[in-house]
Amino acid sequence: MKPKISVVTLGINSLEKSLKFYRDGLGWQTKGIMATQYQEDDKDAAGAVVMFRLNDDLILALYPRKELAKDANRPLDPKSATEFSLGHLVESRSEVDELIDLAVVAGAIITEPPRERPWGIYSGYFQDPDGHPWEIIWNPE
Amino acid sequence: MKPKISVVTLGINSLEKSLKFYRDGLGWQTKGIMATQYQEDDKDAAGAVVMFRLNDDLILALYPRKELAKDANRPLDPKSATEFSLGHLVESRSEVDELIDLAVVAGAIITEPPRERPWGIYSGYFQDPDGHPWEIIWNPE
Repeated sequence: MKPKISVVTLGINSLEKSLKFYRDGLGWQTKGIMATQYQEDDKDAAGAVVMFRLNDDLILALYPRKELAKDANRPLDPKSATEFSLGHLVESRSEVDELIDLAVVAGAIITEPPRERPWGIYSGYFQDPDGHPWEIIWNPE
Repeated sequence: MKPKISVVTLGINSLEKSLKFYRDGLGWQTKGIMATQYQEDDKDAAGAVVMFRLNDDLILALYPRKELAKDANRPLDPKSATEFSLGHLVESRSEVDELIDLAVVAGAIITEPPRERPWGIYSGYFQDPDGHPWEIIWNPE
């Protein structure tokens, strides 16, 4: 299997609320809510999704938790904020502070203000509207 | 904020078990368990982590759930398999089947065997040793 992730799909509770955070709050471009023509039925999950193009070859998708559960054929589990995190590297220490401030304005919750870590990075964490943790990182090396 | 993910960190229960799955089972290259010199203390999480270089500019990190919780300054939540999924695009329908078979041999659980979806893709899901869902996708378009 090639070492590759093509899509990171975040399970979310409200497409509108999550879209607003990532598009209007963080400033990421998207076509908005797509694939609404695919309605849920006995067999299939609903299709409605929001997609962002990241990096050169990565898609970030926002997709309702209950549809993700159905599409993966799994029961819907309770919310958890310690299953994964997403890291975002920046070019300077001040940019970490700026992005954490931006996230607060966008409605994020700061769980850990930026500080130096033993392994040499300077980083802080915020949670998106669904509790998904983002770490904003500056690595001076 | 630039539309970019630099690191996807998976919360895991056992570094050894998870390393074995991704390195030996899926065949991804890594330096193995790193940063073991950073021990947990009152303030900081332990540093031990496994990293894989993916795509051109993305790191997949395996990091214990309890350390992730401590690093993000959050309580450790119960396990959940519907917080996110990782999608892996392949070039053909048969490659979807082959990778799902490979994942089974590596010890993954198949939650949804490959099939056609209403939105035109052919895909199936497996869960890694920590329950994190991967969708293997062929998009004929």
